[in-house]
Amino acid sequence: MIPPEVITPAVLVDIDVLDRNIERMASSVRGRGLGLRPHVKTHKTLEIARKQLAAGAAGITVATIGEAEVFATDGVKDIFIAYPLWVEAPHAERLRALAAQCRLAVGVDSADSATAMGGRLGADAGSIEVLIEVDSGHHRSGVLPDEVVEVAHAAASAGLNVAGVFTFPGHSYKPGMPTGAADNENESLGRAAEALTQAGFEVKTISGGSTPTALISGESAATDLRPGVYVFGDAQQLELERCSWDDVALTVAATVVSRHEARGGNVRRIVVDAGSKILGSDRPDWATGYGRLPEFHEAKVTALSEHHATIMWPDSSELPPLGTRLRIIPNHVCLTMNLVDEVTVVRAGAVVEQWTVAARGRNN
Amino acid sequence: MIPPEVITPAVLVDIDVLDRNIERMASSVRGRGLGLRPHVKTHKTLEIARKQLAAGAAGITVATIGEAEVFATDGVKDIFIAYPLWVEAPHAERLRALAAQCRLAVGVDSADSATAMGGRLGADAGSIEVLIEVDSGHHRSGVLPDEVVEVAHAAASAGLNVAGVFTFPGHSYKPGMPTGAADNENESLGRAAEALTQAGFEVKTISGGSTPTALISGESAATDLRPGVYVFGDAQQLELERCSWDDVALTVAATVVSRHEARGGNVRRIVVDAGSKILGSDRPDWATGYGRLPEFHEAKVTALSEHHATIMWPDSSELPPLGTRLRIIPNHVCLTMNLVDEVTVVRAGAVVEQWTVAARGRNN
Repeated sequence: MIPPEVITPAVLVDIDVLDRNIERMASSVRGRGLGLRPHVKTHKTLEIARKQLAAGAAGITVATIGEAEVFATDGVKDIFIAYPLWVEAPHAERLRALAAQCRLAVGVDSADSATAMGGRLGADAGSIEVLIEVDSGHHRSGVLPDEVVEVAHAAASAGLNVAGVFTFPGHSYKPGMPTGAADNENESLGRAAEALTQAGFEVKTISGGSTPTALISGESAATDLRPGVYVFGDAQQLELERCSWDDVALTVAATVVSRHEARGGNVRRIVVDAGSKILGSDRPDWATGYGRLPEFHEAKVTALSEHHATIMWPDSSELPPLGTRLRIIPNHVCLTMNLVDEVTVVRAGAVVEQWTVAARGRNN
Repeated sequence: MIPPEVITPAVLVDIDVLDRNIERMASSVRGRGLGLRPHVKTHKTLEIARKQLAAGAAGITVATIGEAEVFATDGVKDIFIAYPLWVEAPHAERLRALAAQCRLAVGVDSADSATAMGGRLGADAGSIEVLIEVDSGHHRSGVLPDEVVEVAHAAASAGLNVAGVFTFPGHSYKPGMPTGAADNENESLGRAAEALTQAGFEVKTISGGSTPTALISGESAATDLRPGVYVFGDAQQLELERCSWDDVALTVAATVVSRHEARGGNVRRIVVDAGSKILGSDRPDWATGYGRLPEFHEAKVTALSEHHATIMWPDSSELPPLGTRLRIIPNHVCLTMNLVDEVTVVRAGAVVEQWTVAARGRNN
């Protein structure tokens, strides 16, 4: 399963599963008449963005100006920075350069931010679309639906091109929540768009979507969806029942370096050489551990140090010998991709390519 | 406090505080007649390792062969890979190359690993020292003190140069635990070393130490200490009372991008542009949040997304305006350093240098 030339720990991407995930989301979103602008912060990789665009994505979504620059340089012509940017002079300069390369949209979530952004962009403000962020229940950034008009007026006064609204239903990341969060998302986007329309704005884009909600069909207020994680899947999506074991395209290859049969009060456990510096340490309180093992569903990753994962082994199977190579599905794949400079692409257990994580670490 | 040319989010290192931390640990360890081999996985930076060596460190400790290669190439002559390595042919080749550049010690925690390691190294096995890992209460890797002799015999039979024992008292990372963990560490190391001596081995190195335990003075069984985090401090060390606010050398500069006065049932909060992709998402259950603010001790970082930190603001102070630049102390500084390619070095609020995180991402 793990090609012999791979030195552990290493990130493996199964290209057939990846392709299938990309195609499934593209056809689901297309089938509902919506636009797909996948969030590439998940993979930060040019090869994968190219596949998403080839499968029909209308553009891409990024989290930072730095990420936008990497993909614009690769020729992506439609980029949305789904983040409530605070724009100072250096940001304005970079946004101008981006707007010269592609259709550019950015997020904003307050009148003050819109005014500052428009002021810094000056005569170029109109060349950049702004989408107003709506809080649909995640309670992070974003304004309430009835507050969007105030922000839109400030943006328009500052010369910005108000194009619509967006939300991230991050509260979908909890067991039992995806359907309710998708409802909140639809309702909030619908109310915000309606308010903007009534205030005389032309609403071109209504952007929603997280991986847990994006495949939930039904009447959607959105025009665009921005799922990210779906390309790979991860242990969170598995435990939220938003993907199956067979849908997981990314795993971390690891080696058993320490092994402890139960004795002297100790439990039966192994330690592998993949820790938080490759798996990432996100662990929501509802997760069963720090990742899952595709070949051993009952094994539990109970502790993570920087270079060690401690795995409690189920009584139902033999404790693996030292040197055994195992694969781990990380809890949150976006963090894993941001920890490595390259990934090993495999097909049917053989290495076919190495991809560079081109936008890794582009935090600003 | 944050130099105006810094684009957030960014990692700032205060060089005066760093120098003071390096000197304090060096003189404390020297004062007790012990050797200091700081763990450089914390900083992964050549400039900082050079300072530690200049302050009297006998060598350095690393977690991976890849980290060892980076520092050996910079001329470090004494390196301990404090990890229970499982050695296959490619690892053996790299260990041979390292042993030709420096005095090299590696960890081992089982007879099987020792046998495999010796076998792979063949005629070169004797050029590498091995230290047997002891579990002093952290229950991760390592053997119990009375099991070291069995491992030592296997290592010696495989041609390896058995040089002593080491432990990591990781259970010191809990409030109230450092002193007890230091006692466990001493007792375990003492018993393991005694067992080796009685079995006829010459015990040259007895290596212990974590940042929470390294400054606890008193009779020590160790000959060497390997603290890492002490160079920077972090929010975990603060909350464990192992450093003061003034000892923290590393902060993440961030900007307020979203701001929410209490209304409509929402709490009073801000969102800044530093998330888990720069702060790291380690959060032990005893921590007050995902980091601390040096200028606002009562503020709580209650949630972390990849590019957002949500901060609940205390009633005792004004909610900062949008665009305000704040510094955050990460919970676990080793993860932060592993997320960035470079850090901005400051002195008295002015930028003096940029350092590359040379061993970032060297997971194998």
